Amino acid sequence: MSDEQKLQDLKTRLAEIVDLRRAEAILSWDQHVMMPPGGAAARAEQLATLDRVSHEMFVSDEIGGLIEDLRSYEEGLDYESDDASLIRRTRRDYGKASRVPPELSAEMTRAGAIAYEAWVKARKASDFKAFLPYLEKNVQLKHRYVECFDPADETYDVLLDDFEEGMKTAEVREVFDQLKDELLPFIAEVAERQDAVDDSSLHAGFPTDGQEQFGRSIIERFGFTPEAWRLDRTVHPFATGSCPTDIRLTTRYAEDNLESIFSSMHEFGHGAYENGVDQSLDRTPLCRGASLGLHESQSRMWENLVGRSLPFWHYFFPKIQETFPEQLGGVELETFYKAVNKVQPSLIRVDADEVTYNFHIILRFELEQEIVDSTIELADLPEAWNAKMDEYLGVDVPDEATGVLQDVHWSFGGFGYFPTYSLGNIISVQIWEKALEAIPGLYDQFEQGEFGELREWLRENLHRYGRKFTPRETLERVAGAPLDAGPYIRYLKDKLGQVYGIATPVSA
Amino acid sequence: MSDEQKLQDLKTRLAEIVDLRRAEAILSWDQHVMMPPGGAAARAEQLATLDRVSHEMFVSDEIGGLIEDLRSYEEGLDYESDDASLIRRTRRDYGKASRVPPELSAEMTRAGAIAYEAWVKARKASDFKAFLPYLEKNVQLKHRYVECFDPADETYDVLLDDFEEGMKTAEVREVFDQLKDELLPFIAEVAERQDAVDDSSLHAGFPTDGQEQFGRSIIERFGFTPEAWRLDRTVHPFATGSCPTDIRLTTRYAEDNLESIFSSMHEFGHGAYENGVDQSLDRTPLCRGASLGLHESQSRMWENLVGRSLPFWHYFFPKIQETFPEQLGGVELETFYKAVNKVQPSLIRVDADEVTYNFHIILRFELEQEIVDSTIELADLPEAWNAKMDEYLGVDVPDEATGVLQDVHWSFGGFGYFPTYSLGNIISVQIWEKALEAIPGLYDQFEQGEFGELREWLRENLHRYGRKFTPRETLERVAGAPLDAGPYIRYLKDKLGQVYGIATPVSA
Repeated sequence: MSDEQKLQDLKTRLAEIVDLRRAEAILSWDQHVMMPPGGAAARAEQLATLDRVSHEMFVSDEIGGLIEDLRSYEEGLDYESDDASLIRRTRRDYGKASRVPPELSAEMTRAGAIAYEAWVKARKASDFKAFLPYLEKNVQLKHRYVECFDPADETYDVLLDDFEEGMKTAEVREVFDQLKDELLPFIAEVAERQDAVDDSSLHAGFPTDGQEQFGRSIIERFGFTPEAWRLDRTVHPFATGSCPTDIRLTTRYAEDNLESIFSSMHEFGHGAYENGVDQSLDRTPLCRGASLGLHESQSRMWENLVGRSLPFWHYFFPKIQETFPEQLGGVELETFYKAVNKVQPSLIRVDADEVTYNFHIILRFELEQEIVDSTIELADLPEAWNAKMDEYLGVDVPDEATGVLQDVHWSFGGFGYFPTYSLGNIISVQIWEKALEAIPGLYDQFEQGEFGELREWLRENLHRYGRKFTPRETLERVAGAPLDAGPYIRYLKDKLGQVYGIATPVSA
Repeated sequence: MSDEQKLQDLKTRLAEIVDLRRAEAILSWDQHVMMPPGGAAARAEQLATLDRVSHEMFVSDEIGGLIEDLRSYEEGLDYESDDASLIRRTRRDYGKASRVPPELSAEMTRAGAIAYEAWVKARKASDFKAFLPYLEKNVQLKHRYVECFDPADETYDVLLDDFEEGMKTAEVREVFDQLKDELLPFIAEVAERQDAVDDSSLHAGFPTDGQEQFGRSIIERFGFTPEAWRLDRTVHPFATGSCPTDIRLTTRYAEDNLESIFSSMHEFGHGAYENGVDQSLDRTPLCRGASLGLHESQSRMWENLVGRSLPFWHYFFPKIQETFPEQLGGVELETFYKAVNKVQPSLIRVDADEVTYNFHIILRFELEQEIVDSTIELADLPEAWNAKMDEYLGVDVPDEATGVLQDVHWSFGGFGYFPTYSLGNIISVQIWEKALEAIPGLYDQFEQGEFGELREWLRENLHRYGRKFTPRETLERVAGAPLDAGPYIRYLKDKLGQVYGIATPVSA
């Protein structure tokens, strides 16, 4: 076979694996959005089989041989070309996937499924001890997993790499320390001015049909079209899809708040990233976002930088008043804008505001390192959790259900996942500053309800690359700089300083 | 490996193949019911890959070896046991699947997909000549397919076997000849009494929301529960699912008629069969209906024998009057009952009444034999079609779109499929007579809106066996007799003779 034939063979094999993974994505969407409860057991088997088959197809000797054989061919290609990127990324993915014995992989999946059930019960009973044996099993397996790889600077690096390839624990620690230094004092200042924001208008009671219709009208202006997108109801919102032109968003609605609107914008951001990947990458492993952090930068951007901005509400506030005249007819735009930007320490990560959210993450990041380094007894986690909640946010944790047991991630062994949420916040503003430079009239456009130029700029400068480059390369390409918490801290202090009447130095 | 271990190995392999086929079923459902149009190309790839992978897993040397090795073990088992049935059926399936070269199989799939697109256009343009080259290709490939198998009494036997295993063309011909002898004169008699039935009440205009709510209320009384079933809207109604407790029905609604109600009952019948398969057969290739004919017997039973019966409407007519008071408030039960049983020759198979429907099938059955025996020039099909429509139904075909091009089946090469529709009609009444014997108060129960005993009787005597036995064995088991058109003919003449005031001999 010629090199060209080998590349074609590789592409064919990878395309079939992509097909199976996309099938998994849709079956999982169906499970959460459409499936009658009676389908659960059969669906678990279907997903497990698809996962096993696609994994086996990927770590086959044939693919291993092809990427070895194509080394010199790859060197002759432009680094930025689709083909070079495909071979390079496949070699990296293959290197990781083939190091983990299928038995261990299967055991982690099985243990995760069992621990998930245990976690659901334990959280309901607010009983960490009941969950502890399952957590211990997950941690044991993670240690065996880490041993499959070359030693890293820190054990946690190996786990982080699964969610944010190439990111080092030390780098995360550095930017998180910056967040602590800058934002903890800021949160304290805000706490003294709680009277500056009245968010009672957000809890006036909003029928969910109106919320759905209004949320849909927003994302339709962002770029949602029925030709390529769906929006459905679910319990835990997420975005997924089958290809760039089949994007599935989900959200949830509660009468007593307007979170669904921000959730819809958040999931739109995830969807827009997948929707914007270049057509030439379709049906390859490059056809998705570059990392969880970069993905979250897009969801947080549409949710917060767009959706909690004053120009956005200049356009949409009259419309939401029309949708809910009784609840919002008498409310001032400024009052509403401040309300959706209220900063207040709270118990639950997913309910947290833009600023305090990061401390929910920092807490988990620090505990996870202690867990994987075995410097904490797992039985002591609730106590350590509560101490950090008090230290960072001054929040008193009343029980384990709303404390150490609140998140699903540890039940499926997802250690290393949490930091990507705050990395997404940080990256979102790095990219935002570039977008503002490139589109001087951006906020004027928002006031007119126009978001197309932002979306296209993001597509052109980020989305279209998909997974061609490493997260680091991708970030440099779109933001022109490595990870930097500075812009994010400036943005928070500027915007929320104004909301709370706190003088901040004029930002660059 | 011991025989027990080999059997376990076989079961594990088959279970994974079932998982992939169930994944295909849900992806196909999603495609027709949920998918944004932009997902079409990617979905076609996903389905093709799943199909290829599951086929390769099935015709593997490992499965071939296991079923050979298990021959003597199987002989030591009870013929009716799940294990013996699994080995027996797998040997039969493997024998067929492994005879067809993967290249031919792939070429048939590809040609079918291309011909489908050509058929859609040709039907739109009412231009058979535009479809002819694709039909020729499909027929050529079918001839190559037939050559993969041992010579049969008639070429058509080989094709029929794919949809109704073990059924011979000669047997079908015999029962269809009986239908011709008995029903053609009956249709002529009915034609002279068209004034006996006034169906204007069925075309009064019925908002589709009301139809959906009413149709749902019917199948909920039949046994539809949200725990294990869904009902959605689609263009071409079908039933599918992921396992016996995840059943997906679809139907369509048109304001100018009430067909949706009968379509919902029809699809419920298909769903009930899948829902009723014994739990012990789950995740095996035995976990579905025994054949298309038996499946259709269940859909036609709930649609016609239940849903067009007078006792059924005794219960439901006051309810549909409540749903549509303006349209039906002034209509008599008897008028409505006669209307839903109106017999009138018409152009389109899927719109045909209980009696004339069979002649749409007989026409196709006769033409298909000529096609596969090459005793007709394909270019002459429109003329032959029109001649038979005139001969059997006295219907003048105005164009090719509503004539020879009306059905999708030939576009995907599905020769041999059509007869199973009429076999389903025939079998439905054979089974019905047994149910009536077993449940003397059946019609009284319908008048009370009770259908549970019928459903459970069907489960006990048919559904639970799934695909353990051949269609022939399964029919003998539930109906106590081989295929017999007698009961069906008697039923039609009794019921419709009464509707049209035609004296018929008292039936046994």
